[in-house]
Amino acid sequence: MVEAEKIFSKISKRMKSSIIRELLKDSTNTSIISFGGGAPDPETFDRKALAKLSQKVLLEEYRIALQYGATEGDSLLKDQFIRILKERHEIEGLDYDNMLITVGSQQALDLMGKIFLDEDSYAMVSHPIYLGAASAFRAYGPKFITIDLEDDGLNINQVEDALKKLDEKGEISKLKFIYTVPNFHNPAGVTMSLEKRKALLKLAHKYDVLVLEDDPYGELRYEGEKIPDIYKLANGEGVVLLNTMSKIMSPGIRIGMIAGDKKIVAKAALAKQGADLCTPTFTQRLVARYLEKGTIFDKMAKAVEIYRRKKNVMLDALDKYVKVDGAKWTKPEGGLFIWVTLPEKYDTMKLFEKAKKVGVSYIPGSAFYIDDRVSSNMRLSFCLPPENQIDEGIRRIGKLIRS
Amino acid sequence: MVEAEKIFSKISKRMKSSIIRELLKDSTNTSIISFGGGAPDPETFDRKALAKLSQKVLLEEYRIALQYGATEGDSLLKDQFIRILKERHEIEGLDYDNMLITVGSQQALDLMGKIFLDEDSYAMVSHPIYLGAASAFRAYGPKFITIDLEDDGLNINQVEDALKKLDEKGEISKLKFIYTVPNFHNPAGVTMSLEKRKALLKLAHKYDVLVLEDDPYGELRYEGEKIPDIYKLANGEGVVLLNTMSKIMSPGIRIGMIAGDKKIVAKAALAKQGADLCTPTFTQRLVARYLEKGTIFDKMAKAVEIYRRKKNVMLDALDKYVKVDGAKWTKPEGGLFIWVTLPEKYDTMKLFEKAKKVGVSYIPGSAFYIDDRVSSNMRLSFCLPPENQIDEGIRRIGKLIRS
Repeated sequence: MVEAEKIFSKISKRMKSSIIRELLKDSTNTSIISFGGGAPDPETFDRKALAKLSQKVLLEEYRIALQYGATEGDSLLKDQFIRILKERHEIEGLDYDNMLITVGSQQALDLMGKIFLDEDSYAMVSHPIYLGAASAFRAYGPKFITIDLEDDGLNINQVEDALKKLDEKGEISKLKFIYTVPNFHNPAGVTMSLEKRKALLKLAHKYDVLVLEDDPYGELRYEGEKIPDIYKLANGEGVVLLNTMSKIMSPGIRIGMIAGDKKIVAKAALAKQGADLCTPTFTQRLVARYLEKGTIFDKMAKAVEIYRRKKNVMLDALDKYVKVDGAKWTKPEGGLFIWVTLPEKYDTMKLFEKAKKVGVSYIPGSAFYIDDRVSSNMRLSFCLPPENQIDEGIRRIGKLIRS
Repeated sequence: MVEAEKIFSKISKRMKSSIIRELLKDSTNTSIISFGGGAPDPETFDRKALAKLSQKVLLEEYRIALQYGATEGDSLLKDQFIRILKERHEIEGLDYDNMLITVGSQQALDLMGKIFLDEDSYAMVSHPIYLGAASAFRAYGPKFITIDLEDDGLNINQVEDALKKLDEKGEISKLKFIYTVPNFHNPAGVTMSLEKRKALLKLAHKYDVLVLEDDPYGELRYEGEKIPDIYKLANGEGVVLLNTMSKIMSPGIRIGMIAGDKKIVAKAALAKQGADLCTPTFTQRLVARYLEKGTIFDKMAKAVEIYRRKKNVMLDALDKYVKVDGAKWTKPEGGLFIWVTLPEKYDTMKLFEKAKKVGVSYIPGSAFYIDDRVSSNMRLSFCLPPENQIDEGIRRIGKLIRS
């Protein structure tokens, strides 16, 4: 008898099932008001245009769209990413060799982990951290250096102290990257200020440390001024930019991208070759043809308007129903999440079970800490439920908290 | 300045670019007769049916086909795989929990490497080996135990000797699996006999070693009797089966599958969660709906007929043009490849450059050996060029060899 447990690898033993998946398993029934998932509203998907194009692509371009493709990705799709990064992010000078197409940005995160992280490496990340990044990186066994998130992004003093300390220990070369989600952080909802982006970059350059900038939500801005990407500020120097179509087009289509230094992109492509040969050529070409239409951001504007309203409904409801001394929450200018901090005596994991009983779900804050700490935070996603349900759901949560 | 080379991981340093990719780079121009790639003939793709279905799926099932999906895969697609494995392979008792949908079988190979292989592990593989498996496994740093391939599959005596030796050294638990492509091996074209399948299984069970059975080509049988899968012979006990839609439907659609023990499947799903969250939901649902039609194997019959004829044209041409003492080649009953063995004085890597000059390409045998040995083998794929070009291409190769 082959006993699987006895032959599993060290990597596999580091893997942890996402708490989010476990938590949401029982709460997918429709009677529950879910603030849990980060899935976009399917009514925002441009299904008719995609349906028409998918037929066209298969009939006319089947020789490409159904055949093996280059590991690096479809050049037509790269053309579109390059155009959009230029038009909307003022990023210039990107060549095909600076870009790798991935199966969502989750694969981009995994490839970054795979090509950079050893067991004696350090990865600097925010606390709370995006769970998908934590699970991708953790498999490779690095030590995490966690930096607190503030209302305007990473605590830069902590970053500086940590870098200095590593440098003094002679271990700075073991720090492989600083990972950051500067726009509308998941779960925290906060956006890194221009000053902090510049300060982070200055420190990264001083210590020759790579910055991994992950920007899945950047196009979902509801208020305030766009802030330049760190990649843009650095002119690409020492920064790798990750992006995805998941939040602006469809997550099920699984199209992400890595832009950066040619050597890093080439190494990531080599890793991808062993990982899945290539991203599906059909979905790549479909997304390329869709982006060529040039209508995506007009289409998106409607979704942005829906999300903005839902976000405001949730903030209003929080003001109305969660009147607890010491409770506070972020007021995101974009993205999909509000991060609520209750007074320390609350354990949102315990509260979660009670919430489910009154028909509401959210993600307890502990899910977003590397150290699995007890947390009085909760991540609330406002994207999926209709407005009246958002109000009702927060009312129920408020009642629970007060009781 | 971040110097990428200085911060790349150990895993990334083990990765090697596929020689095949490098070799085929310059030979994709259409004036060259290519026996190189293993890509199916795009005219065999059922593009019209897929085009129609893709539109329908996006219009009617966009809530699933454009949204995040379960890491384990679309249940409707699993239904189809389970049905096909039952109807065509007499494999019974497969449950959803026994199956993981992957981005092609390359991802299945990578996940197997990731959850089983450590640096001090052994992986037993055939020599020659399927290149994609070598590149997936190599990243995790195992030692390879290579077993010669014979006309009827793995040399079972070598397998037995190697197992015995590991057992005596007390290292048998470090052997994580025996990897085999029993049907129409890539590159060797050979099929493992029923006797050898049983003998391999007996040895694997005796030493409690997992068998990884990879069957991408099984449905491409042109002659002879179907031989039961090792998985079937073992009743699933101690065997993991990998399969893919790449050769019977489309490689660009990137749908593969792992079937096996629930614990192994669960661990592979955990690894996939970190690797890419899920296989694109759109392509999964599209393939599910396509398989539901039940026409795939009738449709395939035409492709099989085309490939059978091409294979025979190539075998005839080899008989006609490659009259060199000591030269021999496999006579595959299916699949896409013929494996030519020239007398030892020939170095097919050197010959490759000359072949390109006369407008033919193939893959030199050294690509398929872990130790990068000089090889007098060549892998010839007959699936892509039209029949007259197959004859002409082999004529040119024959002339080269004789000169």
